[in-house]
Amino acid sequence: MSHHLDDTERRAWAYLARVAEPPCAAIESLCDELGPVEAAAAVRSRSVPAGHPLVLEATAARAEIDTAAEDLEIAERIGARLVTRDDAEWPGWPLMSLSQSDTAARGGVPLALWVRGPGRLDDLATTGIALVGSRAASGYGEQVASSLASGLVAENWTVTSGGAYGIDGVAHRGALASGGSTMAVMACGIDRDYPAGHARLLAEIADRGLVVSEYPPGTTAAKHRFLTRNRLVAAMSAAVVVVEAGRRSGAANTAAWARKLGRPLGAVPGPVTSATSIGCHQMIADDLAVLVTGIRSVIALAAPDGAVDNGRGRTRSTDRLTADEQRVHDALPGRGSVTIEEISFSAGLDIPDVRSALARMDVSGHVVNDAGMWRLS
Amino acid sequence: MSHHLDDTERRAWAYLARVAEPPCAAIESLCDELGPVEAAAAVRSRSVPAGHPLVLEATAARAEIDTAAEDLEIAERIGARLVTRDDAEWPGWPLMSLSQSDTAARGGVPLALWVRGPGRLDDLATTGIALVGSRAASGYGEQVASSLASGLVAENWTVTSGGAYGIDGVAHRGALASGGSTMAVMACGIDRDYPAGHARLLAEIADRGLVVSEYPPGTTAAKHRFLTRNRLVAAMSAAVVVVEAGRRSGAANTAAWARKLGRPLGAVPGPVTSATSIGCHQMIADDLAVLVTGIRSVIALAAPDGAVDNGRGRTRSTDRLTADEQRVHDALPGRGSVTIEEISFSAGLDIPDVRSALARMDVSGHVVNDAGMWRLS
Repeated sequence: MSHHLDDTERRAWAYLARVAEPPCAAIESLCDELGPVEAAAAVRSRSVPAGHPLVLEATAARAEIDTAAEDLEIAERIGARLVTRDDAEWPGWPLMSLSQSDTAARGGVPLALWVRGPGRLDDLATTGIALVGSRAASGYGEQVASSLASGLVAENWTVTSGGAYGIDGVAHRGALASGGSTMAVMACGIDRDYPAGHARLLAEIADRGLVVSEYPPGTTAAKHRFLTRNRLVAAMSAAVVVVEAGRRSGAANTAAWARKLGRPLGAVPGPVTSATSIGCHQMIADDLAVLVTGIRSVIALAAPDGAVDNGRGRTRSTDRLTADEQRVHDALPGRGSVTIEEISFSAGLDIPDVRSALARMDVSGHVVNDAGMWRLS
Repeated sequence: MSHHLDDTERRAWAYLARVAEPPCAAIESLCDELGPVEAAAAVRSRSVPAGHPLVLEATAARAEIDTAAEDLEIAERIGARLVTRDDAEWPGWPLMSLSQSDTAARGGVPLALWVRGPGRLDDLATTGIALVGSRAASGYGEQVASSLASGLVAENWTVTSGGAYGIDGVAHRGALASGGSTMAVMACGIDRDYPAGHARLLAEIADRGLVVSEYPPGTTAAKHRFLTRNRLVAAMSAAVVVVEAGRRSGAANTAAWARKLGRPLGAVPGPVTSATSIGCHQMIADDLAVLVTGIRSVIALAAPDGAVDNGRGRTRSTDRLTADEQRVHDALPGRGSVTIEEISFSAGLDIPDVRSALARMDVSGHVVNDAGMWRLS
């Protein structure tokens, strides 16, 4: 399908992407029939072929406002671009799940995606694992999100999230701090700093990863857009992990999308006394999500038979280890397993310190427990 | 079956209970055939009927040591007694699970049980929920065990455990502190203070609940006895809950017995960064245990359709609430649900304080969340 789009075609896509609130199944099917240029002309001239009864209604408010050229200019100015299903980097396979009839009503494949950053959309959408959770995250949730993010990028996964405060932000930051790839899927235009406090973080993601949105430049965030956006987070991830969620967290909606789209869903447990783990515990107890405790179980979720190989092999960065963790790491042999007592002796650390370093390194995927003995992963 | 045992019969049981290391299927089957008095005589005189080939071997070391009279005297002196299957308080129904052929080899029904305390064994064994876990419990684990224990006794459940340091001890203490019933099943004689640091706790349990052992007075704790004892904890409980367990915790053995005996098994999640929750997470992830987060889910586990009614109704003690919790409690209406904001206003507490009080009271079963609103349970 992909060819090099000319300016007329891209402007047509840009027009269609704004003329109705996405996702719009009516526009999609018109476009399938006529192609973007004729579809755009039909909408503009209000003369739509029979068989597309909903197009006129869906586009009534915006048909005469054609800001396609400006939208594309703004995008170019900020280092962004419009990716359409006719472009080589269109993530057709990940988005295919959205075309199923039972999800199309509320979901549907996006017509096009605005993206900002050096990442290739189809690459990031196939190597992504979503880490999502409460905006009001706890210190514990932030610690786990950060640890999972750095573990995932060390294994060449992209950390996908929603750019929000709390778990989302920590996940993106953890990926960036470990020099990895990360993708923020937004509920507003790619040129908006939402939330405002994340202006710098979003700029950094746009600099080194990808900021993605179904909404044209300038679109403000709105409640319904978060729900619509969540389907894209789930669709463009090999698995979705809820790190923390209170009883009514927005993460529950992303989780529901994951299940609807057949994406493996994991949830991280936490203290039962913590309000921000209630949603995770509920999903696990109700058998909606798999309990995940660290990088190994998250990757097992996304690639159950180790089917996905991201190429660069297993070299895991030890840059982010604490001093104790580094000593424990150095005390572990290149091959084979050793007991905690042996590690304690070699590392010159007390058993409790070794034990807590190992627990953290187990979460970050640096070590593996094997019948009570420990080895490098 | 039950009748009032005469002294000869009870001495025969006491002799048989010590003459082989329990559980001993050979003695059990001899006793089934001959009754206790003749079985004891046969063992003592080394003339066992054909069809019981293993009895002589199993009793070779101890057949000539008859301390039955002294054992019963010691028991009487410390307020204990020997309960046999011919006694009215024998928990025949809970122990029946142990008579299944596939478990008899390593398990089997105990021949008799030494018990110390005012509790009636069959009552406690049918109203018991076991709270078990690591000896090296974390502060978090202790907090949850204590909260669950007080919540369980408020609902008229007995808290059953193994009298050990860590989770066991906190569970017993929590039950006693809330004026409830608790049963410690020991891996040593009921007259031994094991562990030594629990002498006072065990005395209190013997004073107000029940200390139980398959082992005659004077028996010391030994590794194999802990494993054998664990089957009794599981058998005499309507459900087993692992509050905390490291990777190689003894609680895993009790959990395995629960599954073998068909007892519902729950596990409490905790921080994934905590070594003492690793075993719990593993059991949940492997679908061996149900994730439980508080008193409601624990009771649902033990009595899935609310089938068990322990009589005294739902009055839940508020004696153990903190000042904040008490204010939140008082701010909740007798009927119907209210929002956190409403509670905050009525209680004169900040939202975060209300939220954390509610989370704790949810665990202890004082409140229930209903579509984001809160009510008294």
